[in-house]
Amino acid sequence: MDYTTTSPAAVRALIRAGKITSQTSGMCAGYAQANLCVLPKKYAYDFLLFTQRNPKPCPVLEVSDVGSRALRYIAKDADIAKDFPKYRIYKHGELVGEYTDVEEFWQEDFVSFLIGCSFSFEAALLEADVPVRQIEEGKNVPMYLTDIPCKPAGIFHGNTVVSMRPMPPEKVVRAVTATAAMPRVHGAPIHIGDPAAIGIRDLSRPDFGEAVTIYPGEVPVFWCCGVTPQAAVMAAKPDIAITHAPGHMFITDMKNTLLKD
Amino acid sequence: MDYTTTSPAAVRALIRAGKITSQTSGMCAGYAQANLCVLPKKYAYDFLLFTQRNPKPCPVLEVSDVGSRALRYIAKDADIAKDFPKYRIYKHGELVGEYTDVEEFWQEDFVSFLIGCSFSFEAALLEADVPVRQIEEGKNVPMYLTDIPCKPAGIFHGNTVVSMRPMPPEKVVRAVTATAAMPRVHGAPIHIGDPAAIGIRDLSRPDFGEAVTIYPGEVPVFWCCGVTPQAAVMAAKPDIAITHAPGHMFITDMKNTLLKD
Repeated sequence: MDYTTTSPAAVRALIRAGKITSQTSGMCAGYAQANLCVLPKKYAYDFLLFTQRNPKPCPVLEVSDVGSRALRYIAKDADIAKDFPKYRIYKHGELVGEYTDVEEFWQEDFVSFLIGCSFSFEAALLEADVPVRQIEEGKNVPMYLTDIPCKPAGIFHGNTVVSMRPMPPEKVVRAVTATAAMPRVHGAPIHIGDPAAIGIRDLSRPDFGEAVTIYPGEVPVFWCCGVTPQAAVMAAKPDIAITHAPGHMFITDMKNTLLKD
Repeated sequence: MDYTTTSPAAVRALIRAGKITSQTSGMCAGYAQANLCVLPKKYAYDFLLFTQRNPKPCPVLEVSDVGSRALRYIAKDADIAKDFPKYRIYKHGELVGEYTDVEEFWQEDFVSFLIGCSFSFEAALLEADVPVRQIEEGKNVPMYLTDIPCKPAGIFHGNTVVSMRPMPPEKVVRAVTATAAMPRVHGAPIHIGDPAAIGIRDLSRPDFGEAVTIYPGEVPVFWCCGVTPQAAVMAAKPDIAITHAPGHMFITDMKNTLLKD
């Protein structure tokens, strides 16, 4: 079943009914997808401040009202506890389980953060004729821990995690301009070229995701990654946190093109 | 005394010493200036969420740590309680006084929000040969209440306040592109043309600031204004709030050009 041209509301309904539990890459072409981080209210101010201080890795699309499983702005009639195909629950920084529905774990004091995702800017790269290697190779994007510190906020701190896409040198400028126009989904690259300059030792051994082929002469281009806030949350060891499982995103009603505002 | 080419640190020192108590328009050319809103911590989450939901009128440059009078990112060795030439204190939404120093009123639970200011993009407009009428006429920019609602957050809500700059039709596109590149200081205009379409009845009677001349054939162009969050704070009637006095800004160490990131 191909969901490329299905509407976001229809795909969310299938996910909610348990009929889609797979990764969402490529579904509902043109619509933005979102990362999730759910925290009890007592951590929400520090986390919101962390996203304000680190907008490139943490571009917030929407913050729910306290206790609410609904969204006001990026999707209609959504249920945050059911509309992701797969969730992860962490207690004190440890993964305790994966679930396709987290209704039974919902707390009245939960605040949900929906964060922009690089799927949105990859569409812009492809449209600009910039290759996206992990899509060509059917893999998960390679991600790396860098030595670039985030600005800390309260209990949250950590280094920046980046995703990497290799490309021929003559495509680099277009990759910058195409993504710079989309600050709400990580924006322009954070680094171009030498991995060692940002603390990455070996591109063939990513910290998350999978390695991709880099052809001779290609330049690695690095973007801030939505794994950054998740890593900061894990390091802070909150009583409980719920995130999406990697690649299992929320599909919003917002067109990617509107993320340029 | 002309402070156009004085460094931000030197001007802040003069302000701190009580030697400058005037408006800061035009001082330290090229450096960003900032609006202020100080609130007790109990209101800070709602206010930070209000700014996240309304980034065009409320572009946050920095949020202080709780109780701190220092800044970490936009200025070195600053004292938030002394480095604005003039402050206003509001209690339960009522103005209770203007001060050149608010040290004696400082509370351990205060959080300071430094918010981007249109002074930054006016430099970009002038560079792009777009007229800035209130500067030509030596006036305060005209500001208007619109019927465009902000997205509410907790106790904070209200309509958007805009500033207006009239210009010949052939300059409008350049005004949009020059300011769209600076989202951290209000970004692109929110409206071009007919004032009635956004609930403004009479351009000659602004709600704040002063009316400026509109020459025959000129188009009014409207930008979101930093008075919006102040109006939302006043309407929420917090126990206490401290703001800068209009035009009496904080001068940061950040070059305006860096606000394009």
